[in-house]
Amino acid sequence: MTMHFEREIDRLKRDLLSLSARVEDALRRAVKAIHERDADLGRAVARDDDQIDALEVELEEDCLKVLALYQPVAHDMRLIVAILKINNDLERIGDLASTLGKRAADLAARPNARTPMDIHRPAQIAQRMLTWAMDAFVREDVALARKVLDADDEVDDLHREAFSRAIAAMQASPEDVQPLMDTLSVSKALERIADHATNIAEDVIYLHEGAIVRHQGA
Amino acid sequence: MTMHFEREIDRLKRDLLSLSARVEDALRRAVKAIHERDADLGRAVARDDDQIDALEVELEEDCLKVLALYQPVAHDMRLIVAILKINNDLERIGDLASTLGKRAADLAARPNARTPMDIHRPAQIAQRMLTWAMDAFVREDVALARKVLDADDEVDDLHREAFSRAIAAMQASPEDVQPLMDTLSVSKALERIADHATNIAEDVIYLHEGAIVRHQGA
Repeated sequence: MTMHFEREIDRLKRDLLSLSARVEDALRRAVKAIHERDADLGRAVARDDDQIDALEVELEEDCLKVLALYQPVAHDMRLIVAILKINNDLERIGDLASTLGKRAADLAARPNARTPMDIHRPAQIAQRMLTWAMDAFVREDVALARKVLDADDEVDDLHREAFSRAIAAMQASPEDVQPLMDTLSVSKALERIADHATNIAEDVIYLHEGAIVRHQGA
Repeated sequence: MTMHFEREIDRLKRDLLSLSARVEDALRRAVKAIHERDADLGRAVARDDDQIDALEVELEEDCLKVLALYQPVAHDMRLIVAILKINNDLERIGDLASTLGKRAADLAARPNARTPMDIHRPAQIAQRMLTWAMDAFVREDVALARKVLDADDEVDDLHREAFSRAIAAMQASPEDVQPLMDTLSVSKALERIADHATNIAEDVIYLHEGAIVRHQGA
């Protein structure tokens, strides 16, 4: 592969990391908005999602251009396909951070509602999973990627528990149905963010231990 | 491009259509299970999702192999990337059909619950959107793909309405919270299926009017 191609690959990686930094920041702010019942911050996160969407479209087009121009093979080709897929997952996490921002604004309007569900813990794990998944991509660290997969189970369990608690609380306090639904929507968004971080980790594993390699050898 | 490459492309398209037929069938059965409160059918749809997942993994690997072996350019390359993306959306629709199947089983256990939300109409539209999106892909019909985009707004509106009705009904009848949540989960899954059908339609439009083409000309 040419020097020019190497530079293009580095640029795609850099753009992916810059998108990921923005998405991680949006998620961090959305979680802060929920914890601190900060409606303005929540709305700002939702508003900023357009920029993330624009970056995703741009990076996808850049990946397709590099695929078309250089026609890379083997690992290089799989790397670009992985960037395309991770790009897509990051954009969806951005969407979900925007959902979290909107729910933060809704919840801020009812500061006294009783919502007996733990959203701190899944928020913490989901953020860590995203950071690990992107670190695993950068450092080509398959072991770290596997840690992301393990962490996903806990977020799933926490969401199931939040769901049961929400149902019970709605039955006991029908006046809190709306904030309970909002909190459940937060829990669900965190669970989906964890799923997307898991997708990214799976792409990293696939990239380095890929079935394609095995099949080609067969 | 060689005859052999043409045959490979035809095979990828055929496999995509075969996956799509399975996913459409799963969705049709899941909707039937909900309407007819048929728990067995619902559980069968959920169980069959493994087969859809396996087909998706296989098709993705086949796409990557064809990309690696033939290094197609321009439209051929974009076509394979479109197949990769549509494959992913179909798999997710399969997951959501599985969710619908599980909710059908839950709802069947409470046949007398009052759930004043319309799920027939969004189910009908979501199914039609998926059929249109895949027809648009096969016939390279950008106008039909645009119809899918238009239809998505109605499903979004219907879900918002279902959400408001659910909140009101939960407050009025706390004893129905669980079936109302189940029905809302159905409405949400249908809305997400419509989103994935929209993604597919967008891929078809991109494939035939792609920004890549415009940028390359610039």
